[in-house]
Amino acid sequence: MSKEKLSVVKIGGNVIENKEALETFLEHFSNLEGKKILVHGGGKRATHIASKLGIESNMVNGRRITDADTLEVITMVYGGLVNKNIVAKLQGLNIDAIGLTGADINSIKSEKRPVKDIDYGFVGDVKKVNYQSINKLISADFTPVFCAITHDQNGQLLNTNADTIASELAIGLSKLYHVELFYCFEKNGVLMSVDDDSSVIDYMDSGTYEVLKYDGVFHDGMIPKLENCYHALELGVSRVFIGNPSIINNKDQKFTTLYL
Amino acid sequence: MSKEKLSVVKIGGNVIENKEALETFLEHFSNLEGKKILVHGGGKRATHIASKLGIESNMVNGRRITDADTLEVITMVYGGLVNKNIVAKLQGLNIDAIGLTGADINSIKSEKRPVKDIDYGFVGDVKKVNYQSINKLISADFTPVFCAITHDQNGQLLNTNADTIASELAIGLSKLYHVELFYCFEKNGVLMSVDDDSSVIDYMDSGTYEVLKYDGVFHDGMIPKLENCYHALELGVSRVFIGNPSIINNKDQKFTTLYL
Repeated sequence: MSKEKLSVVKIGGNVIENKEALETFLEHFSNLEGKKILVHGGGKRATHIASKLGIESNMVNGRRITDADTLEVITMVYGGLVNKNIVAKLQGLNIDAIGLTGADINSIKSEKRPVKDIDYGFVGDVKKVNYQSINKLISADFTPVFCAITHDQNGQLLNTNADTIASELAIGLSKLYHVELFYCFEKNGVLMSVDDDSSVIDYMDSGTYEVLKYDGVFHDGMIPKLENCYHALELGVSRVFIGNPSIINNKDQKFTTLYL
Repeated sequence: MSKEKLSVVKIGGNVIENKEALETFLEHFSNLEGKKILVHGGGKRATHIASKLGIESNMVNGRRITDADTLEVITMVYGGLVNKNIVAKLQGLNIDAIGLTGADINSIKSEKRPVKDIDYGFVGDVKKVNYQSINKLISADFTPVFCAITHDQNGQLLNTNADTIASELAIGLSKLYHVELFYCFEKNGVLMSVDDDSSVIDYMDSGTYEVLKYDGVFHDGMIPKLENCYHALELGVSRVFIGNPSIINNKDQKFTTLYL
């Protein structure tokens, strides 16, 4: 029996931070047919609010450290302000949304990142997606909206990368659904030349990716994102689409499709 | 056929603000048998954070006005920080909690309070509890944890009194369940004499309440709470219990039982 389709859509900070861009995206999302899940980051809003509260961003080797105060701000901003406003807006668009962290219904269990050279603080690496519990919500026709927070199942919330949450949800739910994963960001797709917005790579299988990576086509920030995508494809996700937020229900434009 | 029991438990700010009191309460709550819902206020945490963010509390006739900035803080603190930490703690106690505002699964629809003498701002009066949707979560053995935020189903979140949310949830769910409603606060119950903690009224029916109210026994803050309770009893709630947080699973102590 062929599996039902499920779309997992991840939007980044640039969409979250711009009120109009967010509303336009949410309309697109509400028109996306079939079962679906939204995953959002938090963008710079958390940094702004932390700074207003006198909490300094603690960076080590260019990576942010999530100390206890920073985790509180992230929980307020991602789990409260951003998540619940998205849920309310989607309800206004007749989407029966439900906002979640990984702690809710124990949906995403993670482990505090072990301290090696750097102590990242309250950062979680995903260990288990409870796809059966999440599917109870999806089967009841609710639309889960995940923020980038997980938990250790022992009372501790943990800050977790939103791209990873999207791919892990997609992998977990591919046991039950034919999953398509959308990464929406400010570019029209993966570019052959970072300064040329029209240089979108239409299709890229894993072999082509390895060749282009070897040739130095991708900048450093793009490589972990793409590795994450091929990892998801290897573990059961059907297709990964990368492009601007309107690609989720308008395929008459440039975007990148990844496949194995 | 007799209905299954459901407990709706409301905890106030004094429990939320004290880390140890909250953990003790959550252990009590995790040991409470049967299906259950938790409703929490936010306490003074929102006021502290608002003040740190430079947002002034705007009071008119002793009532707080919820302007747009204040609503953002409430959404962060009640919907994010307090709610998600409670959910994570309950998961650590093996309760399969799910944190909700009234926007999530459109569970509680309210209407922005009409402006008469005072414009209360983004404050919602409850219009409809979607008990069928909430019951999908309860039937799936999830334990809903509500914060004091609702929505107008048109994209707008609204600040709503936590006592009212608890009683409206109890009323709505009494169509499906035998509902017991617990109001937990810092006193041992409703007192005959406000300064005497041992003067707990054990049982009070609505007739006795009217007589005692006429006699001026209750201070002004208590009357709307009690009116709220008898309103819930009239509309199908089985019993209302008022006392300190440990009464939910320890009846060997003083507390007040209200009935019609």
